[in-house]
Amino acid sequence: MRGKQLGRQTYALAHPPTAAGWGSVAGKKEGEGPLGPRFDQVATESYFGQRTWERAEREMQRLAVQTALSRAGISAAGLDLLLGGDLTNQCIATGYAARSLGAPFFGLYGACSTMAEGLALAALLLDGGFGAHAAAVASSHFCTAERQYRMPLEYGGQRTPTAQWTATAAGAVVLAAEGSGPCVTHVTVGRIADCGIRDANNMGAAMAPAAYETIRAHLADTGRTPADYDLIVTGDLGQLGSTLVTELFRRDGVELEHYADCGVLLYDLARQDVHCGGSGCGCSAAVLTASLLGDLREGRLRRVLFCGTGALHSPVSLGQGESVPGICHAVALAAAHSER
Amino acid sequence: MRGKQLGRQTYALAHPPTAAGWGSVAGKKEGEGPLGPRFDQVATESYFGQRTWERAEREMQRLAVQTALSRAGISAAGLDLLLGGDLTNQCIATGYAARSLGAPFFGLYGACSTMAEGLALAALLLDGGFGAHAAAVASSHFCTAERQYRMPLEYGGQRTPTAQWTATAAGAVVLAAEGSGPCVTHVTVGRIADCGIRDANNMGAAMAPAAYETIRAHLADTGRTPADYDLIVTGDLGQLGSTLVTELFRRDGVELEHYADCGVLLYDLARQDVHCGGSGCGCSAAVLTASLLGDLREGRLRRVLFCGTGALHSPVSLGQGESVPGICHAVALAAAHSER
Repeated sequence: MRGKQLGRQTYALAHPPTAAGWGSVAGKKEGEGPLGPRFDQVATESYFGQRTWERAEREMQRLAVQTALSRAGISAAGLDLLLGGDLTNQCIATGYAARSLGAPFFGLYGACSTMAEGLALAALLLDGGFGAHAAAVASSHFCTAERQYRMPLEYGGQRTPTAQWTATAAGAVVLAAEGSGPCVTHVTVGRIADCGIRDANNMGAAMAPAAYETIRAHLADTGRTPADYDLIVTGDLGQLGSTLVTELFRRDGVELEHYADCGVLLYDLARQDVHCGGSGCGCSAAVLTASLLGDLREGRLRRVLFCGTGALHSPVSLGQGESVPGICHAVALAAAHSER
Repeated sequence: MRGKQLGRQTYALAHPPTAAGWGSVAGKKEGEGPLGPRFDQVATESYFGQRTWERAEREMQRLAVQTALSRAGISAAGLDLLLGGDLTNQCIATGYAARSLGAPFFGLYGACSTMAEGLALAALLLDGGFGAHAAAVASSHFCTAERQYRMPLEYGGQRTPTAQWTATAAGAVVLAAEGSGPCVTHVTVGRIADCGIRDANNMGAAMAPAAYETIRAHLADTGRTPADYDLIVTGDLGQLGSTLVTELFRRDGVELEHYADCGVLLYDLARQDVHCGGSGCGCSAAVLTASLLGDLREGRLRRVLFCGTGALHSPVSLGQGESVPGICHAVALAAAHSER
């Protein structure tokens, strides 16, 4: 039996690959947030024991993958495929982490949607019969991203109210073609949506239309309603972007009852001075691996629609007057094969 | 019947997807090279009618995909999946081209190996039963890459003898799950190889070990010898890197008889002042789509091993004293299903 295409964007997997292991690594600030106790590792300083922030981010990826592999009961040598990416130019955190792991490697660029993109591709490939174990990894680091995308850190630039805080975090998931436990049942591949936002400090608004379009396509393709999910979670639109998604659905007469956003879940917004919430590839990767997958395994969640959102601009494209293209990939997760 | 894993890195496809259409777009200098008459479109100036080089590169991608779609007899609306990438920070040429095409989109970062990575993933996904048509696209532009990776163009920096010339070129292939003609029979997913090269002007030497490792793994996994291929083609190692690959195999007592490199094929090295040859994601993408696929269709080639090579460094990583990690993905192409 082969996977089935539903509509143009969605695939129902014939043999839903299971999450055999996962790992999460977070920075100090993230460790002080509501998910703090649930991370596998929390850094005590921004360098993670390395001599540059870029090396710190690479090390966080490596640790996240190693933790996931160890929980899955395999070594890096037993991994058939590693898929990953990050926000640094030329994705160097991932490239160098992949070098240290030595697995067959496909590099991705999906901005903050990378975890969902990697998970989607890993699930499709395993379901297609290619390999027994595939891992997806994504990371971000406040210090590598901020100076690259916005201002030198030393400048101490004032943040606007719509700004989000790039998470210092990494998450990795090892999927297995066989096994029991939380599994990937459907994948909805995103198309780019762009409503003309040109403000580098308002990524939530730039990505919200893509999240809306992909969730809508997923529900239409599968014939499901929001009530079929215990949680629909975007990542990472922040407070403003996630409010926009709720409003876009309300216009259609659809109420997103159990809806949350990884950018809002990662921090205590009232206390941690992160403005609209978290962002960065590591944000949704860390929320998935520190919280959602565990909740699925423990039965606190039965079905989750994990919707990674990314903004596919660059400082150069914004400087040239372009708007921000948004994308969102949705991965449907179930607590067990019986729940699909 | 499902695809079969051979060794750790290689997959033999059960229903080899066919190249239903392809398109190539090249810059002025590339149009003056040996493949000039075979490109679908050649620019008369570096801006390709746009107001920035980044927009020019995006336009080249769009044109390459549109040409491939039109040859395949489908519209962008009929495309189930677009996979692509480029060298610009945050892959903006691809992100904005994907916005204009509107297809479900997975962004890749494989540096100059991107065309092989996209082709590999497209073939695996189609063979896995996911969708009917998937496209792979990659591009590079001398002017967007050079100022980002090395020097401002206005500076007129002297090039070293081992330097390669970033190609202004784009190539796209539309694969179909069903059909006849040139097809993808095997995929060998690359692992990172790094021999410690720290010179940003010697990418050929940095990537040669990865090409050697992947080709060796492909031959071992499939039980084939170089003689089973009419052509083993790397892209883009240039003159120095491709000589190194030949020497590495010679040490093993293996003679690569029909071996070429896209970086050498794209230009007339004696006449065009490109030092060691071409590079950039667009180099191997353009050679594949302007020359190799046509030669397979016309029967001039029967079996080709297309080995995309990429250097996964960044100016920041080299500035921090890191060496250059290389990767190579190999895609086996046959003139027809009967030749696999």
